[in-house]
Amino acid sequence: MYSIDKLYHAVAQKGNVCVGLDAAIEYLPQAALQNGTNETEAMLDYNKAIVDATLDVAACYKVQIACYEALGVAGLELYSKTVRYIRERGALAIADIKRGDIADTAARYAKAHFSGDFEADFVTLNPYMGMDSLEPWLIEAEKRGKGAFVLLRTSNKGFRDFEGRQLKEGGFVYDAVGEKLNALAAQHAGQCGFGIFGAVVGAEAKSAAECEEAKALRATYGNLFFLIPGYGAQGGGAEEASLLLHADKNGGVVNASRSILTAWRHGADDAHPTLLGAAAAARTAALEMRDALRRQSAGQ
Amino acid sequence: MYSIDKLYHAVAQKGNVCVGLDAAIEYLPQAALQNGTNETEAMLDYNKAIVDATLDVAACYKVQIACYEALGVAGLELYSKTVRYIRERGALAIADIKRGDIADTAARYAKAHFSGDFEADFVTLNPYMGMDSLEPWLIEAEKRGKGAFVLLRTSNKGFRDFEGRQLKEGGFVYDAVGEKLNALAAQHAGQCGFGIFGAVVGAEAKSAAECEEAKALRATYGNLFFLIPGYGAQGGGAEEASLLLHADKNGGVVNASRSILTAWRHGADDAHPTLLGAAAAARTAALEMRDALRRQSAGQ
Repeated sequence: MYSIDKLYHAVAQKGNVCVGLDAAIEYLPQAALQNGTNETEAMLDYNKAIVDATLDVAACYKVQIACYEALGVAGLELYSKTVRYIRERGALAIADIKRGDIADTAARYAKAHFSGDFEADFVTLNPYMGMDSLEPWLIEAEKRGKGAFVLLRTSNKGFRDFEGRQLKEGGFVYDAVGEKLNALAAQHAGQCGFGIFGAVVGAEAKSAAECEEAKALRATYGNLFFLIPGYGAQGGGAEEASLLLHADKNGGVVNASRSILTAWRHGADDAHPTLLGAAAAARTAALEMRDALRRQSAGQ
Repeated sequence: MYSIDKLYHAVAQKGNVCVGLDAAIEYLPQAALQNGTNETEAMLDYNKAIVDATLDVAACYKVQIACYEALGVAGLELYSKTVRYIRERGALAIADIKRGDIADTAARYAKAHFSGDFEADFVTLNPYMGMDSLEPWLIEAEKRGKGAFVLLRTSNKGFRDFEGRQLKEGGFVYDAVGEKLNALAAQHAGQCGFGIFGAVVGAEAKSAAECEEAKALRATYGNLFFLIPGYGAQGGGAEEASLLLHADKNGGVVNASRSILTAWRHGADDAHPTLLGAAAAARTAALEMRDALRRQSAGQ
């Protein structure tokens, strides 16, 4: 069974929330740092508490490796333990690594993130160098039942610089990526019908034109499962994100990191919660997000 | 002083060779593994021996992090020690990480690779998401005197899939990247005149048209220092690479990894060299490469 089939079933059961474990010491409540553990131990405890509290609400977890790389070797040990814990609890881990390199190197990266210390269920990839930079990942994914989300149309302010440029042949650069990913999904799909490689598509549609574009992306790439960042702290909301889901509310997971990890800050009754109190606040935020997404009608 | 100024002077003194430390157990001579050390220790010893043997020939060293990530947490400790050793010896280290992510995350990555365990002099970056994904790197580079090479026009077979697509406004996707990098170099340059951010440009020009394209790239992006991979094992040669250098033979470094690291395999007199013997073979290969590049006339 491919990771994409597991994710499809998880979404059907639990909804569309992807909890982003973007480790940062400033996201932890004071209590997490007061029992004599060092910072990376405290962060691991917090990650575990968040996972434990959200297992039945989260379709999957996304772990942004940059947060861990920033802490050096000890940070990557924390990353490894976090991804391992998610998977030990029977949940799905998306390694948000956005790697992209020539074939030989991509094969090394695929080994790094589909096996060993950093084994995850999915990775995120950057397509700039071309399809031969994705192929080694595909071979490994087929062999090990893994999956990936390839950057397609992101919603950061700079996206028009390159990925959002218009092509001579029509469409945008990201359409060229999407076309290739559509072809790939037709050849490499799970039982759920979605390609084993999906796409990263941003959810910050604000204007009417952007909403139409979001709907068009969902329609054009019907067999691509979407990883949708930008919820909450990055400015996206349930309405925008829902435009990228299918009518049955499947076909995408919506990531929120900071708004879930720091939900404890907005607790009216307790500004200094325990670790479990902070995890409970995270669970409430995830539940509210799940329900907000359920209330919206999907893009098509 | 910026890293780019140091690199410019290193090229003027030592030539254009960038030695690529792509760690792989199969690149080591048997002798490196026979003194009771474990594999990552043996690889560190080999990396150090290569650096020691090539210090006066190599303008800089490129460390491909994928090779180390593939070995898990222990691999990244090896990576950290390798980069640190290069810098302790007074040489320049390029972290070949090809990261690219939204601004908040890019700031985390910049912290990771411009300070702490993984501190390097330069990084490689992927521009797909746009200039706002590069800005946090630029801020950190300005603050710490660091540099970067941004993927521009690579020469892997898939490059036409996306980066080599024609734009509606004329030129290719990579021209859009180059134009932005040119503007950036005009604002953020070292004393040598080159921008503190350069570009990764492939060296596998084979046809007459490709040679013309290489010369045009050199002329168009006169103030961008080029990191030129693809020499030796990847098929590029001195002639192709030289098209990407300026008339004074500066403005670029040419990377070779496997052909230097495994030069000992081609030693006529010794199929099972010692560690120092293998490092001496690497030195000879680097010298030959330097001289081959010196014999060529530059692109402009």
